Amino acid sequence: MLIRLAYDIQFELPAPVAMVALLNVHPSRVPDLQAPDELETEPRLDVTHYVDSFGNRCARFVAPQGHLRLSGSTLIRDSGEPDQVNWGARENAIGDLPHEILSYLLNSRYCEVDRFSNIALELFGGLQPGWGRVQAICNWVNAKVAFNYQQARPTKTALDVYTERVGVCRDFQHLAVTFCRALNIPARYATGYLGDIGVPVRLPMDFSAWFEAFLEDRWWTFDARNNEPRIGRVLMAVGRDASDVAMTTSFGQANLSYFFVMAEEETESSASVAD
Amino acid sequence: MLIRLAYDIQFELPAPVAMVALLNVHPSRVPDLQAPDELETEPRLDVTHYVDSFGNRCARFVAPQGHLRLSGSTLIRDSGEPDQVNWGARENAIGDLPHEILSYLLNSRYCEVDRFSNIALELFGGLQPGWGRVQAICNWVNAKVAFNYQQARPTKTALDVYTERVGVCRDFQHLAVTFCRALNIPARYATGYLGDIGVPVRLPMDFSAWFEAFLEDRWWTFDARNNEPRIGRVLMAVGRDASDVAMTTSFGQANLSYFFVMAEEETESSASVAD
Amino acid sequence: MLIRLAYDIQFELPAPVAMVALLNVHPSRVPDLQAPDELETEPRLDVTHYVDSFGNRCARFVAPQGHLRLSGSTLIRDSGEPDQVNWGARENAIGDLPHEILSYLLNSRYCEVDRFSNIALELFGGLQPGWGRVQAICNWVNAKVAFNYQQARPTKTALDVYTERVGVCRDFQHLAVTFCRALNIPARYATGYLGDIGVPVRLPMDFSAWFEAFLEDRWWTFDARNNEPRIGRVLMAVGRDASDVAMTTSFGQANLSYFFVMAEEETESSASVAD
Amino acid sequence: MLIRLAYDIQFELPAPVAMVALLNVHPSRVPDLQAPDELETEPRLDVTHYVDSFGNRCARFVAPQGHLRLSGSTLIRDSGEPDQVNWGARENAIGDLPHEILSYLLNSRYCEVDRFSNIALELFGGLQPGWGRVQAICNWVNAKVAFNYQQARPTKTALDVYTERVGVCRDFQHLAVTFCRALNIPARYATGYLGDIGVPVRLPMDFSAWFEAFLEDRWWTFDARNNEPRIGRVLMAVGRDASDVAMTTSFGQANLSYFFVMAEEETESSASVAD
Repeated sequence: MLIRLAYDIQFELPAPVAMVALLNVHPSRVPDLQAPDELETEPRLDVTHYVDSFGNRCARFVAPQGHLRLSGSTLIRDSGEPDQVNWGARENAIGDLPHEILSYLLNSRYCEVDRFSNIALELFGGLQPGWGRVQAICNWVNAKVAFNYQQARPTKTALDVYTERVGVCRDFQHLAVTFCRALNIPARYATGYLGDIGVPVRLPMDFSAWFEAFLEDRWWTFDARNNEPRIGRVLMAVGRDASDVAMTTSFGQANLSYFFVMAEEETESSASVAD
Repeated sequence: MLIRLAYDIQFELPAPVAMVALLNVHPSRVPDLQAPDELETEPRLDVTHYVDSFGNRCARFVAPQGHLRLSGSTLIRDSGEPDQVNWGARENAIGDLPHEILSYLLNSRYCEVDRFSNIALELFGGLQPGWGRVQAICNWVNAKVAFNYQQARPTKTALDVYTERVGVCRDFQHLAVTFCRALNIPARYATGYLGDIGVPVRLPMDFSAWFEAFLEDRWWTFDARNNEPRIGRVLMAVGRDASDVAMTTSFGQANLSYFFVMAEEETESSASVAD
Repeated sequence: MLIRLAYDIQFELPAPVAMVALLNVHPSRVPDLQAPDELETEPRLDVTHYVDSFGNRCARFVAPQGHLRLSGSTLIRDSGEPDQVNWGARENAIGDLPHEILSYLLNSRYCEVDRFSNIALELFGGLQPGWGRVQAICNWVNAKVAFNYQQARPTKTALDVYTERVGVCRDFQHLAVTFCRALNIPARYATGYLGDIGVPVRLPMDFSAWFEAFLEDRWWTFDARNNEPRIGRVLMAVGRDASDVAMTTSFGQANLSYFFVMAEEETESSASVAD
Repeated sequence: MLIRLAYDIQFELPAPVAMVALLNVHPSRVPDLQAPDELETEPRLDVTHYVDSFGNRCARFVAPQGHLRLSGSTLIRDSGEPDQVNWGARENAIGDLPHEILSYLLNSRYCEVDRFSNIALELFGGLQPGWGRVQAICNWVNAKVAFNYQQARPTKTALDVYTERVGVCRDFQHLAVTFCRALNIPARYATGYLGDIGVPVRLPMDFSAWFEAFLEDRWWTFDARNNEPRIGRVLMAVGRDASDVAMTTSFGQANLSYFFVMAEEETESSASVAD
């Protein structure tokens, strides 16, 4: 399956501002790219690329005062298979985790693991460790938290989600990630494209958040918001929580004026047009 | 100057527990070591060493149920000079910061930068950027926050410190770090040995926390708690905040039963004895 | 001046629910009523009236499952004068306050006075006590907090407003009330009608929140949201904060389905029509 | 049974300060007094007495700079019976509650009912309403929260207790009160004397906190801290939470320098001595 990816994000900048953008596909998906995955800026800026400590491809630049447009479009090959499910996947003993995984057990800005240790144990401590326990966490969060775009706010933490029971996709994942870590299951926040391939209801597109749990020696995709295997996720970035993987981080004021994102299956005919 | 470093930390473990210890001196100080810097464990455990994403030397192991003792002792050469002061050091423009420094501008568990942007601007936004502004932050925190061991708690964040105005050394640094980041000055949390060399009053030793701010293309030491140049700091670990650099992180219950730490100048006579 | 007041609030109730409504004008305004001020319910319910410990007129009833409509309309005489301003009004010494005023110095759900004592002193402690200091608080809140209906949430406290700097009218008042109390100035939260009499721009009507500060032996109206003397406020209820004076408090689920409120000057001609 | 009550509380005041003291026994216990219940002050101050909106006896005064001593001693008759237990007591329907009870269903500073509605339902919503449910709340809090004097802090809320699971008697009661209210069971915070009559282990005395729940048309004593019927409670004050019923509230700085409280059974011989 081929998936056409595109975004167009525009800002009004009252003053020059340094920005970091995580708008490329994740290095793990670069082999699947069928076309260049370039960030274009208007005006044309001097963009530096680097890989951050989480392994994400980052672009940084200083944008001048005025209008700024960040856009890109590419084509990516995808298995067309839904997210893998592996009920047999076991939790690794902490002692067996690779070093670089350990930090995904710790606190982060929106995941107050230290405040959830008892709550997580009470809710999920009695369950059989492994895939089923992570799935039980997703089921709980999915059932208990209501989705509402109007109830988003940038400072909302897992504890806020746990008490308010409403939020957007990032909030669902933050709560699930926090529960996992509190149970000593490494978990990290993930962002990327998630179109509506194979899904009956079509919603306005946005970048999406999900999360990954480390079981049986590798990362697996989970999604406490949608809570069902989905087709066509394209990972862009992973990190401890949303603070690490904002699509754009502006070190100064940047007023969003336009936002468009797309991830659609490219059929033969549409492909030929697109090419 | 030679400084004798030692620690002896003991726990009672009700069950086997995986632990990570950051009890070695920081790689930047390894060239100064005059003796091996080994973590000894009782019982003798299989300890793995690695360097985390912040550049710290970490030791990990799984300890059995029962009594656990972590100890070490070494000798380190030190300039004997107080912390450097450089009133001319300028803030780097964000666009000029090395990539790996950018993450020290972001939120972390105990440093809610997103909730401090206005407060920091109101308090320090009018000051001349550079060393003096970081020093002004230290002065403010030092003057406004009272030291009280009894008012420590593991979940205390910078915002808690800002409203409660009381805490221990980690709390002072978290608030100062958060102010810096909110002003787009990279800042990181640091832990290590800080004895009372050159200080008239002798206090019971503990590991100490301070912070580093990135000015004029490098990290500099600041200390909102003591707020004066000190002699003989020995860095052990740096990170976003205390969550990243706990001396020991236990993934399970570990009850501290004994704690000793020492950092004292080694005179000729004492050195000969120690050797 | 005559002001026509009306409201029409409708709910869908999935199950029977007990409710308390504070939809009458405050006892202090009863002498000004030119027409009955009756709460009408559909279906017709057995409504009990009482005065709560803050002196507000309350109505309570148990509504059955299904559609519930609460409506009322009345006519009230008003001086037509803007809110009084008295720059000479002094702060009372605590020792001189009437007993029943003291509770308006304490903490309440949305006004964490205990977390603001230092912040309030730093911002306003150096100002001359009295009217000017309360006005300075209003100026500060009005200048620093942005109005945004989309950023309302029921759990937002004064500390949240202080860090997020965005909210609706209740949030402005909570922050101002908390600053006052932290400075030992009694302050209470007020709700009522506030039409747009004398105001150039017409906004969609809602019930409004303002606050009262106790100076020179009596309560005075302040409004950190609008921050200018207004004509035609009609007080409905006062309390420690919004928790005490919700227009309707439902002890169970009640889904708002329709909301209308009106407060308009009644001219001779319109009055004759209305009568 | 006769119980000898006494307290002696001393402060250093850096400046004159207005204070409110709730150091008398509650009006409901006045008929049991066998001796005058007078607040004595050193220096001798002009003390005014009043009853607050919760029905508590309050004393207010302005103390001069310097040393302040508040003391009192009295003798009270007590049934000698342990706290009443009534497993048959039912929850009142909200619609049947007396008006003045309704406010004990609402939010207050340390009882964030609005953040606990789902948590309380999940934990206790499935239980049979009535006495047993309140007792289940006490059992839960008593089992899940650890007592630790060192972990007290004045700003700790029910949500803090729920996540930190440690606190002093006030914290236990705040959490239990919040759970009750979130389930529509009126609950209020209570303070008073609680000696160790009939208790094997003797602890250093302090004033104590417990709570009352409204069931079957009246208030009943519960105590999530001790969680067993006790003999010899002497109620001093009730309110929404600890903010309303501080033993002493100082509107300015007051540094506690000495604290003594006593509640002991008076035997014949000791009585004759005391008289």
